[in-house]
Amino acid sequence: METSLTRVEWRALKQFTKAVFEKAGFTPEGAESQADVLVWANLRGVDSHGVQRIAWYLGLVDKGHMKPRANIRILKETPATLLIDADYAPGPVVTVMAMRKAIEKARSVGIGWAVIKNTLHQGAMGYYALMAATEGMAGIAIVCNPPNTAPHGARAAGVHNSPIAICVPGQRHQPLMLDMATSVAARGKIDVAVDRGIAIPLGWALDTDGKPTTDPKAAAVLLPAGGGKGSGLAMLFECLTSLFAANPLLAPVFQGKPGASVHRQNSVVAAVDIATFTDLAQYRQNADEIVDGIKALPPAEGFNEVVVPGELENRVHAERERSGIPLPAGTLQKLVDASKRFGIPLPAGL
Amino acid sequence: METSLTRVEWRALKQFTKAVFEKAGFTPEGAESQADVLVWANLRGVDSHGVQRIAWYLGLVDKGHMKPRANIRILKETPATLLIDADYAPGPVVTVMAMRKAIEKARSVGIGWAVIKNTLHQGAMGYYALMAATEGMAGIAIVCNPPNTAPHGARAAGVHNSPIAICVPGQRHQPLMLDMATSVAARGKIDVAVDRGIAIPLGWALDTDGKPTTDPKAAAVLLPAGGGKGSGLAMLFECLTSLFAANPLLAPVFQGKPGASVHRQNSVVAAVDIATFTDLAQYRQNADEIVDGIKALPPAEGFNEVVVPGELENRVHAERERSGIPLPAGTLQKLVDASKRFGIPLPAGL
Repeated sequence: METSLTRVEWRALKQFTKAVFEKAGFTPEGAESQADVLVWANLRGVDSHGVQRIAWYLGLVDKGHMKPRANIRILKETPATLLIDADYAPGPVVTVMAMRKAIEKARSVGIGWAVIKNTLHQGAMGYYALMAATEGMAGIAIVCNPPNTAPHGARAAGVHNSPIAICVPGQRHQPLMLDMATSVAARGKIDVAVDRGIAIPLGWALDTDGKPTTDPKAAAVLLPAGGGKGSGLAMLFECLTSLFAANPLLAPVFQGKPGASVHRQNSVVAAVDIATFTDLAQYRQNADEIVDGIKALPPAEGFNEVVVPGELENRVHAERERSGIPLPAGTLQKLVDASKRFGIPLPAGL
Repeated sequence: METSLTRVEWRALKQFTKAVFEKAGFTPEGAESQADVLVWANLRGVDSHGVQRIAWYLGLVDKGHMKPRANIRILKETPATLLIDADYAPGPVVTVMAMRKAIEKARSVGIGWAVIKNTLHQGAMGYYALMAATEGMAGIAIVCNPPNTAPHGARAAGVHNSPIAICVPGQRHQPLMLDMATSVAARGKIDVAVDRGIAIPLGWALDTDGKPTTDPKAAAVLLPAGGGKGSGLAMLFECLTSLFAANPLLAPVFQGKPGASVHRQNSVVAAVDIATFTDLAQYRQNADEIVDGIKALPPAEGFNEVVVPGELENRVHAERERSGIPLPAGTLQKLVDASKRFGIPLPAGL
């Protein structure tokens, strides 16, 4: 599949991406985090959150809205919690730092809970949840942005399609990873439909008049997954992130405050240490057995197999590690532009 | 509405319920928790989790499966976390205790995270999340049971429709409360359809052959809310509760272990202290403004108003506090039976 696309070896792509962000003013460590988060998303097939974002990020830096060397400060700290002001740092830069600190705290008191205010696009939230799982912990990552999703029963945006990621370690199996938006479909899937010139299913989005639409170009407001369940989670995720950071993102838009719709994110990332509660090796085995059992269930009509959350992404990951990451022409052009701008050679093969 | 049903004053019903559980062997404090959780559910209109459960609970006690004076033990403890072995204590008895301790820890280090193993039916999880909100904290409560819900793409049960409740305090408004199962419809709603002899919508449940059904009597397996999102959350909730307690509830059923399907629950209840992060009065006001803004959105076609999670239950609560809790004949009979068995006079008016 995707053989008509140019493929690039992932390490070379990451090296290039890191070099671009260093030239854009990131610290070497910050550029490493930024590149790793983006290329990880590409490896897993989540291309909407991969290197195609480079141009957008560079634009945010150029406008001064994203600060590559922001004054990230810990505003409040306890043995178990952190409140971090990101000062408009790139999402991966501050969130990798925050999750590392949450993991340290979890190692010490069983849980670390870090609230982050005023960061920018964090990429795929699963990355941070996985950081905890890699350390033998459960990882949780939640984010909120200004509204883009209709609360159940409304025909205008009132919540963000706030994603949540939860990840725990297995043994034989890859970490069990849920990484989901609270909308029926992520915005990226609608963008893909626009690019392909195909319709979207009814139930994904509303147009600007609040009417259901199948035209991806007319899709203005996302619809929540599971009706009031998705939008209820999203509303409470704003309360667990933005309100804990005293930095509301929903209400200022309702109130028409200037600049309220400008992109920025608040977030919470948490780690819960398994060994504090129980035997880690046994936990891993128990996690494997859930996967084994669910996969052995009889498939529903129309399904060939039962897949667990993250499984399809893990397959893409394995394939792309071997065969390279396929890049559509538009994404390739963005890399060429960055290469020219900063005088950085393109990854081998491009 | 419901004027044909017998109504009982809620305090009298609670007093009666408490007396029943004391006679059944609960401590006075345990009986108080049990009665308060049940009658709170009735007040909010969640009658499936109210006093109609008395007979079932008494049966569990009679069989020795539920221990009114269980040997509840704290197995592990840090400044932020707890692992509690409930020893088959009634859900409210151990969970009220666990949330109180989580709140204490949150007051001290910003968060308290309590994992509970081997309890029985905890009732409406929102009750425990609300305990934290009442103390100026965010409350989170999650529970897992043996499987009753098909994972997305499967036609047999593989996860539980694990509910999650999240609650934060408002100021003018009632606490913002989400209390949702991860299935499309709770089992209780299907039971109501059986009682009424009406069909259930397609998409709620499968029959024992794994085929979609609209017959509530044939409904054997629940379907997850939002497809893989609901069942993904449910799978990870097992990992955050049962696996942290070294007490898996899903895999033993897959493996056909004897007794694996017997009702029991593992759970996590957590409190996050708002004042540790920010100004509580400001937080409350910010929470109010989310409610105000969402309620002011234009309703979607087919809706008269936009309601926020918990709002309808709050209205029922206010009405039933004033006018009493309506009891259907079947529930009334259960109260009469308990009254006779223990020689406790029925609440006034019954």
